[in-house]
Amino acid sequence: MARPAPAPLAISLGDPAGIGPELLATAWAARTVHALPPFFAVGGATLLAAAAQRRGLDLRIQRIADPAEANEVFPTALPVLGDLDGPYRPGAPDRDGASLALASLTDATALATTGGAGGVVTSPIAKSRLAEVGFAHPGQTEFVAAACGVAPADAVMMLASPALRTVPLTVHVALAEVPRLVTRELILRRGRIVAAALVRDFGIARPRLAVSALNPHGGEDGKFGDEDRTVVAPAIAALCAEGIDASGPHAADALFAPHNRDSFDAALCMYHDQALIPIKALDFDAGVNVTLGLPIVRTSPDHGTAFAIAGQARAHPGATIAAIRLAGECAARRVP
Amino acid sequence: MARPAPAPLAISLGDPAGIGPELLATAWAARTVHALPPFFAVGGATLLAAAAQRRGLDLRIQRIADPAEANEVFPTALPVLGDLDGPYRPGAPDRDGASLALASLTDATALATTGGAGGVVTSPIAKSRLAEVGFAHPGQTEFVAAACGVAPADAVMMLASPALRTVPLTVHVALAEVPRLVTRELILRRGRIVAAALVRDFGIARPRLAVSALNPHGGEDGKFGDEDRTVVAPAIAALCAEGIDASGPHAADALFAPHNRDSFDAALCMYHDQALIPIKALDFDAGVNVTLGLPIVRTSPDHGTAFAIAGQARAHPGATIAAIRLAGECAARRVP
Repeated sequence: MARPAPAPLAISLGDPAGIGPELLATAWAARTVHALPPFFAVGGATLLAAAAQRRGLDLRIQRIADPAEANEVFPTALPVLGDLDGPYRPGAPDRDGASLALASLTDATALATTGGAGGVVTSPIAKSRLAEVGFAHPGQTEFVAAACGVAPADAVMMLASPALRTVPLTVHVALAEVPRLVTRELILRRGRIVAAALVRDFGIARPRLAVSALNPHGGEDGKFGDEDRTVVAPAIAALCAEGIDASGPHAADALFAPHNRDSFDAALCMYHDQALIPIKALDFDAGVNVTLGLPIVRTSPDHGTAFAIAGQARAHPGATIAAIRLAGECAARRVP
Repeated sequence: MARPAPAPLAISLGDPAGIGPELLATAWAARTVHALPPFFAVGGATLLAAAAQRRGLDLRIQRIADPAEANEVFPTALPVLGDLDGPYRPGAPDRDGASLALASLTDATALATTGGAGGVVTSPIAKSRLAEVGFAHPGQTEFVAAACGVAPADAVMMLASPALRTVPLTVHVALAEVPRLVTRELILRRGRIVAAALVRDFGIARPRLAVSALNPHGGEDGKFGDEDRTVVAPAIAALCAEGIDASGPHAADALFAPHNRDSFDAALCMYHDQALIPIKALDFDAGVNVTLGLPIVRTSPDHGTAFAIAGQARAHPGATIAAIRLAGECAARRVP
């Protein structure tokens, strides 16, 4: 018996002054060539129409009252759920726009947690602007985690691109703080979440996890930095003892070279730049931010609001398209 | 009047148990297709013949007594200067091999400092093995600097590849040490050397230097790490005040993305992995290590001895070929 189709994906609008709305519209217009799964926008019927017109897109929009209608509407029109809306003022963010972005994010996430949506794809917001209208989280990942009742530390950011998947162990912290924050427990906890997600969401039966070294060349047996011997290596051994195929610590400079990239399914990196430099150097326009460890599927294009180029038909839709496609693949694997 | 041709390049043998000799022979065999400048090996006549045979190369070797003969010999045979030699035992390093590697490096460097060679290309050695035979330097770069009478801190390692040039401000130190070692003075000193070398050796009239941030996203105005505001930014301002086109601090994750790579001629990075991850991810087989700030031209393929694959015709010659070509280009620009 064929599996039932997953529920359609909910896409939040993002900040309406940013590039989110035009990329949402562009992704719908490219649905056939990229074989995108059915999705719907959470609000923004007039906003999206304006963004599409400005981008030169022939966008048909159809309001829906229930997510379940999206599958049928999607081939011929961009389904828009709900009445959230506002004016399109690209490049000119304001409080009303931030409130709209927050409302769309909140509704889209709720639809995913209650099962109406197969997953949520979040369009870019400006964190500082959302904070002004009451958003109390460091970013959308933590917001979605909280909505799912998951501890922020267990909502794990993965960057996924055609060439590579990386997971930074630490993210927005000073480089000086990183060595102290890299603990055996954190590597273990994150390693388990990543391995489980590669099975459940990526369909990899026996995922191979490469763990990067904190120090250059892994510290060369303690000559420069002892953490790779005393912290990272024991954590890898503990993961292996649990049956997880983890290797390392790998010298990070060589880990992302073409002949090494095929040797693992995801790299667990020690800090932000170690994980993001190779992703962006190799695939700037197709990087997807996936949140692992949640009861729902959540992805996001790995870029910001880009207010400076919003409304100019310059923003590249690659990451949005990739985020929607990946969310669809993960959602399909979760259908019982 | 045409410039006189530069003197031929001296290539050291590297550890004879490693991949150096076979790559040296392979580079000569590929001299025409890659338009390589004339070079000669410093020793190894029988060793190189054995390495070439094992690699299936039809290598003609001709001993020379003076570097000046190399230009004439080079089109038809690999010129070998001097009597240094030893048995070819790929994958089986020993003391005699380390002594040979050190002697070849010493002679090759001396030929460059005295002007007999237009520059030196150093093949890979095993530092720990050379230390056993009296090599008192952390690596070949420091050895060459000492031979030139240049302070180790002023011999600046650049990684150059077709896609990118990067310079790590700190190299083989623990990550925990990096924030302390990144000082305004060091950025200034290195920035000046890099800018001058881009003019003199790379022929870039007005080089653009991009300086990376130490912290992710540059610390976002001090939210995570203050060094980019208090140390890196003032150093960049000081470079600019000296007339150097320096920009930054740039968030390192996006700096190496395709659309950003065209905006600078070299990136001054804060630490090893920040500089080497993008180079190796993008161009693993063509990375060249160039030492800037020396009175001589010195390059090196950016890989090690690879004892495990020596003598198996598996080692990729791309970096050796690129190192020779780049040394030739730099040497030609230095001809008065």
